[in-house]
Amino acid sequence: MSLNIVPFVSVDHMMRIVLDTGVETFLRELADHIEADFRRWELFDKTPRVAAHSAEGVIELMPTSDGETYAFKYVNGHPGNILGGRQTVTAFGVLADVATGYPVLMSEMTILTALRTAATSALTSRILAPRGADTVAIIGNGAQSEFQALAFHALMGIRKFRLWDIDPAATRRCVANLAEHGLETTVCSSAEDCVQGAQILTTVTADKRYATILSDNMVAEGVHINAVGGDCPGKTELARDILLRSDIFVEYPPQTRIEGEIQQLPGDHPVTEFWRVLSGQAPGRTSERQITVFDSVGFAIEDFSALRYLRERVAATGFHQPLDMLADPDEPRDLYGMILRAR
Amino acid sequence: MSLNIVPFVSVDHMMRIVLDTGVETFLRELADHIEADFRRWELFDKTPRVAAHSAEGVIELMPTSDGETYAFKYVNGHPGNILGGRQTVTAFGVLADVATGYPVLMSEMTILTALRTAATSALTSRILAPRGADTVAIIGNGAQSEFQALAFHALMGIRKFRLWDIDPAATRRCVANLAEHGLETTVCSSAEDCVQGAQILTTVTADKRYATILSDNMVAEGVHINAVGGDCPGKTELARDILLRSDIFVEYPPQTRIEGEIQQLPGDHPVTEFWRVLSGQAPGRTSERQITVFDSVGFAIEDFSALRYLRERVAATGFHQPLDMLADPDEPRDLYGMILRAR
Repeated sequence: MSLNIVPFVSVDHMMRIVLDTGVETFLRELADHIEADFRRWELFDKTPRVAAHSAEGVIELMPTSDGETYAFKYVNGHPGNILGGRQTVTAFGVLADVATGYPVLMSEMTILTALRTAATSALTSRILAPRGADTVAIIGNGAQSEFQALAFHALMGIRKFRLWDIDPAATRRCVANLAEHGLETTVCSSAEDCVQGAQILTTVTADKRYATILSDNMVAEGVHINAVGGDCPGKTELARDILLRSDIFVEYPPQTRIEGEIQQLPGDHPVTEFWRVLSGQAPGRTSERQITVFDSVGFAIEDFSALRYLRERVAATGFHQPLDMLADPDEPRDLYGMILRAR
Repeated sequence: MSLNIVPFVSVDHMMRIVLDTGVETFLRELADHIEADFRRWELFDKTPRVAAHSAEGVIELMPTSDGETYAFKYVNGHPGNILGGRQTVTAFGVLADVATGYPVLMSEMTILTALRTAATSALTSRILAPRGADTVAIIGNGAQSEFQALAFHALMGIRKFRLWDIDPAATRRCVANLAEHGLETTVCSSAEDCVQGAQILTTVTADKRYATILSDNMVAEGVHINAVGGDCPGKTELARDILLRSDIFVEYPPQTRIEGEIQQLPGDHPVTEFWRVLSGQAPGRTSERQITVFDSVGFAIEDFSALRYLRERVAATGFHQPLDMLADPDEPRDLYGMILRAR
């Protein structure tokens, strides 16, 4: 490809790539890429995301690099968007070559973020959930919910999902979409009802405020909690008491302490970095009665893995659009001459 | 435009917009936008750029917001790129709506950065240079040099330019390009030769190391130095002694102390924020014998101004390409259903 061109994956191309690959295969292979990058965690440049907060929401930049490849994601979170027919979360991102600084891939990441968040949830649950877990409660049936269920099925073979949302229409939509994949869904009447008989509790609500989606009495011994929705300052989903009787696993502590459930706890409350569990440096679940929490906020390395995997899928499927994004004069110093000659 | 579409300004469209507007008109109007934003400096969210350094160069993200509009730029700096036929600096950027987090414009910014850097140089020189300045020395005749000269002509009416570069081919190219605009150029035999008779000294070299492009004896009383090329840690152009006898003007001190010429000075060395001069809160030049230095590193607000101005030019000229960048399901929560229906 010529030097001026950056391949771009539009929303339409992303859907084609996911369908062409198969959504569950995509989730499994994506989880493999995330796992591989988590195992080499120490290699990465890591920084908490750079956030611009406003009354309506947040716009964030999430950069990281493994020294050879650089990635960043632009992502917003605006709970009120749904009222105007917009997505709460939209995103796009770029992969670049560290040696030249040139972008090598640009992509929509609204769909890709939903996929990587779900792949990370299932990857961590596969390690932390109690043995024999066969039922997942999904509290919050918004845009992320089907991706969560499909990832649990793809990575762990789970077929039973208990669903609850304050908006029954959201649950109906989730049921209908999951039925297309032959997954078993139970529509629940409350969050309390939803957690009954589930060994994995996924909270994935969208309010930008301190909320108690799970109260202490709802959480039985031995469960694994996959806390996805609490992901920015002032936004949490779990009662503090649950955290105090759980073992807490996180992505990157400096970011999670600002954004995650643990913003409710003192800054020195012990947490385990999940990559240490994967690489055998820290224990995961150690007893049947233990409550484990994955305090998911979404970290830049997961987006790096997602873009790295997407680049392979773009090469395999050809779905992309060439963007004339980089100035490429015949003589690199003759940038102005390029404009003159364009007359 | 429908919700999924973000207008994109390619390199080709950027050239058409600049030519359609006229490059000097573009520089003048762009400088007006930068000046207007500098005057409301206190409104902006400001943060030093987020840099990923490597042996070969740097990749940076530069975000800012005025509370209504958000902008960020991706920019690299890789001096070795020129050997592989690539640009030292390439960039692209995005303007977004703070209320929804949705991007409203994406653009190439390699050309736009060259224009905004030059517009900022001429804007600051117009205020800080000695009265009657009619000659500019440009040391370093790379990709930025013509833009500098054109901005000095557009904003200050300056027609006389003295040029020097370690590579005579670079100077020849600059002379030829400026001749098309009827500007008077003198090819110099050394940096010492170049500064003779010039009241404004522009240094715009690209090496990523501490260099002494201007030594103390080369700088006469009363000149204004526009130091553009020293813009990252370890990269400077001016002898420290010059700084000690100058009054130094900067964009955003926390960033300039890391990246600018003043990284050679103690962290508490007095500097003046240029926006304070524009808004009448601090003096600019106060005597004929004073040496003034604009320690330019390039700040996010200038890119914000550039994208804000570009958006107006896109609306006026129509030059853009619609990018299918944002997922837009019929029902905003039905992101997965959108994929299912794409089958």
